[in-house]
Amino acid sequence: MDRNRLESLLNEVREGRTSIGDALDRLRDLPFEDLGFAKLDHHRALRTGMPEVIFAQGKTPAQVTAIFARMAQAGGNVLATRASHEMFLAVLDREPRAEFDEVARTIQLTQNPDIPQGKGTIAVVCAGTSDLPVAEEAAVTARLMGNTVELIADVGVAGIHRLLAQRSSLQSARVLIVCAGMEGALPTVVAGLVHAPVVAVPTSIGYGASFGGVAALLGMLNTCSPNVSVVNIDNGFGAACIASLINHL
Amino acid sequence: MDRNRLESLLNEVREGRTSIGDALDRLRDLPFEDLGFAKLDHHRALRTGMPEVIFAQGKTPAQVTAIFARMAQAGGNVLATRASHEMFLAVLDREPRAEFDEVARTIQLTQNPDIPQGKGTIAVVCAGTSDLPVAEEAAVTARLMGNTVELIADVGVAGIHRLLAQRSSLQSARVLIVCAGMEGALPTVVAGLVHAPVVAVPTSIGYGASFGGVAALLGMLNTCSPNVSVVNIDNGFGAACIASLINHL
Amino acid sequence: MDRNRLESLLNEVREGRTSIGDALDRLRDLPFEDLGFAKLDHHRALRTGMPEVIFAQGKTPAQVTAIFARMAQAGGNVLATRASHEMFLAVLDREPRAEFDEVARTIQLTQNPDIPQGKGTIAVVCAGTSDLPVAEEAAVTARLMGNTVELIADVGVAGIHRLLAQRSSLQSARVLIVCAGMEGALPTVVAGLVHAPVVAVPTSIGYGASFGGVAALLGMLNTCSPNVSVVNIDNGFGAACIASLINHL
Amino acid sequence: MDRNRLESLLNEVREGRTSIGDALDRLRDLPFEDLGFAKLDHHRALRTGMPEVIFAQGKTPAQVTAIFARMAQAGGNVLATRASHEMFLAVLDREPRAEFDEVARTIQLTQNPDIPQGKGTIAVVCAGTSDLPVAEEAAVTARLMGNTVELIADVGVAGIHRLLAQRSSLQSARVLIVCAGMEGALPTVVAGLVHAPVVAVPTSIGYGASFGGVAALLGMLNTCSPNVSVVNIDNGFGAACIASLINHL
Amino acid sequence: MDRNRLESLLNEVREGRTSIGDALDRLRDLPFEDLGFAKLDHHRALRTGMPEVIFAQGKTPAQVTAIFARMAQAGGNVLATRASHEMFLAVLDREPRAEFDEVARTIQLTQNPDIPQGKGTIAVVCAGTSDLPVAEEAAVTARLMGNTVELIADVGVAGIHRLLAQRSSLQSARVLIVCAGMEGALPTVVAGLVHAPVVAVPTSIGYGASFGGVAALLGMLNTCSPNVSVVNIDNGFGAACIASLINHL
Amino acid sequence: MDRNRLESLLNEVREGRTSIGDALDRLRDLPFEDLGFAKLDHHRALRTGMPEVIFAQGKTPAQVTAIFARMAQAGGNVLATRASHEMFLAVLDREPRAEFDEVARTIQLTQNPDIPQGKGTIAVVCAGTSDLPVAEEAAVTARLMGNTVELIADVGVAGIHRLLAQRSSLQSARVLIVCAGMEGALPTVVAGLVHAPVVAVPTSIGYGASFGGVAALLGMLNTCSPNVSVVNIDNGFGAACIASLINHL
Amino acid sequence: MDRNRLESLLNEVREGRTSIGDALDRLRDLPFEDLGFAKLDHHRALRTGMPEVIFAQGKTPAQVTAIFARMAQAGGNVLATRASHEMFLAVLDREPRAEFDEVARTIQLTQNPDIPQGKGTIAVVCAGTSDLPVAEEAAVTARLMGNTVELIADVGVAGIHRLLAQRSSLQSARVLIVCAGMEGALPTVVAGLVHAPVVAVPTSIGYGASFGGVAALLGMLNTCSPNVSVVNIDNGFGAACIASLINHL
Amino acid sequence: MDRNRLESLLNEVREGRTSIGDALDRLRDLPFEDLGFAKLDHHRALRTGMPEVIFAQGKTPAQVTAIFARMAQAGGNVLATRASHEMFLAVLDREPRAEFDEVARTIQLTQNPDIPQGKGTIAVVCAGTSDLPVAEEAAVTARLMGNTVELIADVGVAGIHRLLAQRSSLQSARVLIVCAGMEGALPTVVAGLVHAPVVAVPTSIGYGASFGGVAALLGMLNTCSPNVSVVNIDNGFGAACIASLINHL
Repeated sequence: MDRNRLESLLNEVREGRTSIGDALDRLRDLPFEDLGFAKLDHHRALRTGMPEVIFAQGKTPAQVTAIFARMAQAGGNVLATRASHEMFLAVLDREPRAEFDEVARTIQLTQNPDIPQGKGTIAVVCAGTSDLPVAEEAAVTARLMGNTVELIADVGVAGIHRLLAQRSSLQSARVLIVCAGMEGALPTVVAGLVHAPVVAVPTSIGYGASFGGVAALLGMLNTCSPNVSVVNIDNGFGAACIASLINHL
Repeated sequence: MDRNRLESLLNEVREGRTSIGDALDRLRDLPFEDLGFAKLDHHRALRTGMPEVIFAQGKTPAQVTAIFARMAQAGGNVLATRASHEMFLAVLDREPRAEFDEVARTIQLTQNPDIPQGKGTIAVVCAGTSDLPVAEEAAVTARLMGNTVELIADVGVAGIHRLLAQRSSLQSARVLIVCAGMEGALPTVVAGLVHAPVVAVPTSIGYGASFGGVAALLGMLNTCSPNVSVVNIDNGFGAACIASLINHL
Repeated sequence: MDRNRLESLLNEVREGRTSIGDALDRLRDLPFEDLGFAKLDHHRALRTGMPEVIFAQGKTPAQVTAIFARMAQAGGNVLATRASHEMFLAVLDREPRAEFDEVARTIQLTQNPDIPQGKGTIAVVCAGTSDLPVAEEAAVTARLMGNTVELIADVGVAGIHRLLAQRSSLQSARVLIVCAGMEGALPTVVAGLVHAPVVAVPTSIGYGASFGGVAALLGMLNTCSPNVSVVNIDNGFGAACIASLINHL
Repeated sequence: MDRNRLESLLNEVREGRTSIGDALDRLRDLPFEDLGFAKLDHHRALRTGMPEVIFAQGKTPAQVTAIFARMAQAGGNVLATRASHEMFLAVLDREPRAEFDEVARTIQLTQNPDIPQGKGTIAVVCAGTSDLPVAEEAAVTARLMGNTVELIADVGVAGIHRLLAQRSSLQSARVLIVCAGMEGALPTVVAGLVHAPVVAVPTSIGYGASFGGVAALLGMLNTCSPNVSVVNIDNGFGAACIASLINHL
Repeated sequence: MDRNRLESLLNEVREGRTSIGDALDRLRDLPFEDLGFAKLDHHRALRTGMPEVIFAQGKTPAQVTAIFARMAQAGGNVLATRASHEMFLAVLDREPRAEFDEVARTIQLTQNPDIPQGKGTIAVVCAGTSDLPVAEEAAVTARLMGNTVELIADVGVAGIHRLLAQRSSLQSARVLIVCAGMEGALPTVVAGLVHAPVVAVPTSIGYGASFGGVAALLGMLNTCSPNVSVVNIDNGFGAACIASLINHL
Repeated sequence: MDRNRLESLLNEVREGRTSIGDALDRLRDLPFEDLGFAKLDHHRALRTGMPEVIFAQGKTPAQVTAIFARMAQAGGNVLATRASHEMFLAVLDREPRAEFDEVARTIQLTQNPDIPQGKGTIAVVCAGTSDLPVAEEAAVTARLMGNTVELIADVGVAGIHRLLAQRSSLQSARVLIVCAGMEGALPTVVAGLVHAPVVAVPTSIGYGASFGGVAALLGMLNTCSPNVSVVNIDNGFGAACIASLINHL
Repeated sequence: MDRNRLESLLNEVREGRTSIGDALDRLRDLPFEDLGFAKLDHHRALRTGMPEVIFAQGKTPAQVTAIFARMAQAGGNVLATRASHEMFLAVLDREPRAEFDEVARTIQLTQNPDIPQGKGTIAVVCAGTSDLPVAEEAAVTARLMGNTVELIADVGVAGIHRLLAQRSSLQSARVLIVCAGMEGALPTVVAGLVHAPVVAVPTSIGYGASFGGVAALLGMLNTCSPNVSVVNIDNGFGAACIASLINHL
Repeated sequence: MDRNRLESLLNEVREGRTSIGDALDRLRDLPFEDLGFAKLDHHRALRTGMPEVIFAQGKTPAQVTAIFARMAQAGGNVLATRASHEMFLAVLDREPRAEFDEVARTIQLTQNPDIPQGKGTIAVVCAGTSDLPVAEEAAVTARLMGNTVELIADVGVAGIHRLLAQRSSLQSARVLIVCAGMEGALPTVVAGLVHAPVVAVPTSIGYGASFGGVAALLGMLNTCSPNVSVVNIDNGFGAACIASLINHL
């Protein structure tokens, strides 16, 4: 469309129906999206295998269903994070192929299996069962983006030998996502064992002076391992996006 | 050495001078580094092109010089960050080939030019001149690790057109480091323009409610762009390590 | 009344019934409101078109109804913010002309349509659907104060082209209200595109290190755009008051 | 220049030397500023009377002087805030017409006296002598932007009668800037006395639990007066920009 | 009892049944309360008119009732603060003379009307209806401690004339309790109008950056009026204890 | 003066030279201080024995001297707190009768020895030598306001017997000021031993998690003794003002 | 098992079936736990009498039951902390010998009564009934670890004589656990009375500026008694672990 | 002395010179320290080998010298922590046997070599050279209290193998002090390797979001190892006191 508008303007110039001065003025006022900028963006999701995503928390089941259905119509894969079972039932009514992951709290619809595949494995590491929802959100997201994921749970820093026993798995990953609550030391220790980039996810697990994940967040930001970067508290989804981008390089 | 110890133990076993039971006991008590674990680590720096690094801030010129000289003897490249000119003069006395970058506040010694080269370009982006020390620390570090670096300064979010004018540079980078103080919005906006991973570095630039970089840090952690991860305030060095690791994948 | 009291005092002085000394003493003790000070205040609302307002949150439906009815008797427009549907039903029983806005969470009664009209348009801008309640609270309030309001939603900084596409709308506003949660960068970017004053409203939308809107608040206070001022988290009402005052200048 | 580039492109189209398709491609890739976008920005300062501004704090006298001189060449007015006397002497060497305000800590150069004049008076209000540097920074900035400024000092809330005695001055202002440290209550009380918009500036004056201005900042954000918006701690410059924009409407 | 123990020890000494050395040893080990120290404390409540008090919040109705009944048996006045209506019904079953104050959220039992009377009036001041529960808790407590209380509500700093109109009431109080949420400026302004000590009570009323009363607390601690001291957020009870102590001097 | 203005207005009314209507208008516009309001304030200091006070910290010796001299001319007592020895020398040049207290960091001038005397003793209590500057500031201030002060130092809660040994001194005070840094527990323990009001002063003494007095401040606000109120960190002056007011009741 | 693997490797070496070089390589790659490291850990609980522990809060009754049953099969003692009555009923169905402590909120199963006994008494001290759940969690845990526990409640610092009356109990303890909310001063005062190590537990009891136990935590960290160390807010379990370790030395 | 007073009182009773009633009255009024309570305290230091300690930071060299000399006269060992070299020179003038530890920043005087010896070894562990001042303060203090100390430095969690290589040293300690800045994860990892109590000391080492040791402090408080307790930031002295007490049990 915008190409059309530009084309007819240029035709008018060529044919002398519009003066150079008028053409200059009209070009200056063209909205940016008319230059094709926005369209690139529109196709990005499908091209890169990145699904359309809904942050479901705080929305009603009806709202989640409506957005989910609209996104599904675009033909790509759809993912809703922080979703409840009640939301899933509402979505299922509309999209019978939707799937729910109870631990990850995700609803997903895989319409486009031909996602470009990441080159290596993404290791998703966490300490205890309490961190599993965040770790699983990362794992589900990364898989839907075309990555092979290895989930390594139950490896806390207070029992360092369990972590060391996983050394070969850790070292064979191309990028690692490490989730930890409480003191948040796991990413630092893991990062010291590998040469790959580590995306650290503080979780809100803990009590008292954990301040809903702040202690873990600060621990990760102050890591003495130089290969750790950090995302927001409980942001398993974001960590997966970054890890997937890296793994597709 | 440890290989020697293990070898003689195995020889004793073969020759029957040590019983299987005694060998088992001695093996269980071997320190871990005797298994070669530490050596791998020792060689990592040279193999990956990651320099030996000194965090100079808070040390005396004499201390920096001593550590610098000891590291230089190992034959690899050496980097001191957060260094003063006074520290440089002290180091120069001992290592006449050392170089100082006034803006980045780094002292470096390049003994090993054959570093493995990263595959693409790392873009280092910042808004104003105040953020330059952090951005240059990242740039110097990344170059010393074998990366091509493009520094894009003077592109704040309050004048969005200047940033948009750099769109092609931004989009051609394989990984980006974006430094910002004050409200810390630059990484989010940059990340919306590219498909590559963005490492965000909050800087301590600002006053009043910037709280020494906390406002920028929080802004980056709460980014609505899914391809942003964050390092500690002013940690240009750490951002370069992560970006280099990604760029060498 | 107070005019009457003063008048009779002066009459007593003129007629010699009260000595100058006694009059001085009585004048010194007159309450301030007797000097007409309070009345000015009393008429301010009607004169400026500013409605009488109830902050409904934390009150019972009965309390809201009682205050609403009492204010309605004064003849001006009445507005209740942070109101629930249950509160609306209670108010409706008493004031059948009251209207409810589900998104803005406001109950309003328009008794006085002849409000002085603001001179230009107030643009109310926000990023996503989550920020809409705050943005709509601002829009409803501003309209009730006699302003033309243009609501521009779905323009987040992570997809800068959508914002740029709204450039002409933004630039034609006389004053702008920009609501944003998470990293709170939208007001800074918008302010860089316009010459008008921008009132920034941090919203409590976000999770983890957003700390209920604190990250957005800090981001806005540290803006590098010089035409941004800030109100309290979620305070759409206050932003509308300020914008309306400016728009009526 | 960019107009020239566009013009020659259009000429090539008209003359048939460039096909419509090629012209479309080249237009799509034009940097945004080539569309005249940046120029508008470039001319904004002169047109609106907004001076070019340097935040001098943290820069060396040599750096301030260099930036100041470069800005002065553009022909408009130049302002440096948070400047020391030592910086002024360095600037004076290069720009003999520069002036220093010891209290406001500003260096200014007025080359363009024909600034558009604001329509009313901006009142700059503060409590004690400690808040004067911030208040004067606001006053100097506002004057340089073409506003009549009335400075009202020594009116703290602990002696409310002194404030009330200034009621007519306060009420005749078109917009007010109110600076306060410690508990930061002054903007709220002033705002209750006037119908105009109030820009509140928390100052870092205080000790102990004032936390460098945080107590005042929180007080202002939680104001119960609906006509108050807030800028960063000690940001007299920003308050003046907003007030000037409003006063020029 | 302890007097008895001491008496018999001394008798044993006199009668030579216990040696001086043994007596010394036993005296050194006597618990302190045996010296009459604790008893003074025990009688304090009745002597000073200070009631026995239960902090009911977080306790079950059964627990509140049990403690209330036990205290009632001591014969003095009993007060439960932060109590619910449900708690009251439980207490009423056991103590039919107990009274409930819905706004103050207090249950009280007056068994001892002959409390020593304070010398002047305690003024309890607050701004809006939201602060009333805290103000009423202070008023109920102060009355039960034998003080004449004048409650002055609806006098916020944003409408200073309403406060000034109460000047004579304020100035005639012997001590004042001033409750305020949001920006917490009321105690400072009130304290500037009187010569009496002011006990400031921050309330948790507010939203966003009020942080549950922290903004008000900081405002009060940073007061520029030298006659203000502060108690914990929502601590109407504590303010009344202090004010009553002062009023009984 | 204002009495004069009012008098002549009333005379004009009596003599018929001014109409009632005009007189009404002029009366409404009279500044409040013309009603004698401000004068009351002006005489307050002398009447109550409260000295004129300068907060010297952050001022230059010249500024302190200038203010000190101006206040001295009013004839009352003058006090400068947070003063350095260098400031004292500057003041001494101008006011040879000025006295300096090295520990309290106060400069004082006693011109009016006939201050009304407080009724009882004010006990000023602190734990260690580090808290002495704050305690002495309180003591010097209280004495200058006409109170008998007993300073009780070296009684920390970690050695409770030293505090108990001072029990009779504590119990004979009419009001107590208790200064403490670190954990700030002293006011609570002292308040449990007495029946008098306790004004608690957190000091900035401590390190690490004392956060410049915040730990002590929070400890005091959360006291379980009902007779404690709190002032700002290090605010010995404010505590003395309150204690003196109470002691003069 | 790992012993088996090592044994067969050594046998292969002895019998010449594996070369020394190959054996070296395989030894270097052995997971660490194969060296018996993990087993030591596995036996630790039974050897030291430390029970297997479940942090029940945030888990479903079904999850708690499942983990409880699995741990019970190991034959040692089992403890679940932060458990509800509903969880207990679920566990009881499966493990009829399980016991519930309503105040401590613990479920425990004692299968192994022959725990090594600590050498002295652990005193668990707290102020009021509100701190009892934390104190009882500590007491229950310490008893299950083989310690004699003396619980001393109702000894707050505001009534110091009650604490002093317990002096001999306090002084006869080998290690003390002191729980306190609000201002958290109790550990400091207790520690001043004894020569033993004190483990301080801040509790979340309080309101307003207690910030869920932060005030108490800071108070304890800033203690002026040199024999106090601190655990997380409400962490009665952790305090008991440390105290038990010390008591078994 | 007090024994004397008591003795003569008892003699008077025995001899009938004082009645039982009078004796009772006088006994009730005896200051507590007269009962021998304070003396116990006074002898504690010498008996337990705990030195007299001066916190030198913030004091002048003259003050430190004066206190040091006074303490030295008591005949026991004396320790000054946080001392500068300048302070040492001043002390040396007065006490020629005083010794200075440049890293630990301590001045000590050993007059009483016969301190009771602790039963095992105290391991003092830290990561880098930056943490050494705190670790050495702990080591010096612990040695002066009669403990054998093993200092294990350079064992950070980012290179876990270096820590594991020290496993036997760690496991042979009777109690451990672990100092760490930045993310503060070292105590947790160390505690997972040993069965002994671990006293964790956060250090202020770090930058940006380390907030002067707060990140490390929070990390340690949220440890998932149950044998860790924590002291204040940089409090090496306090950690040594606790460890020594435990080691002397």
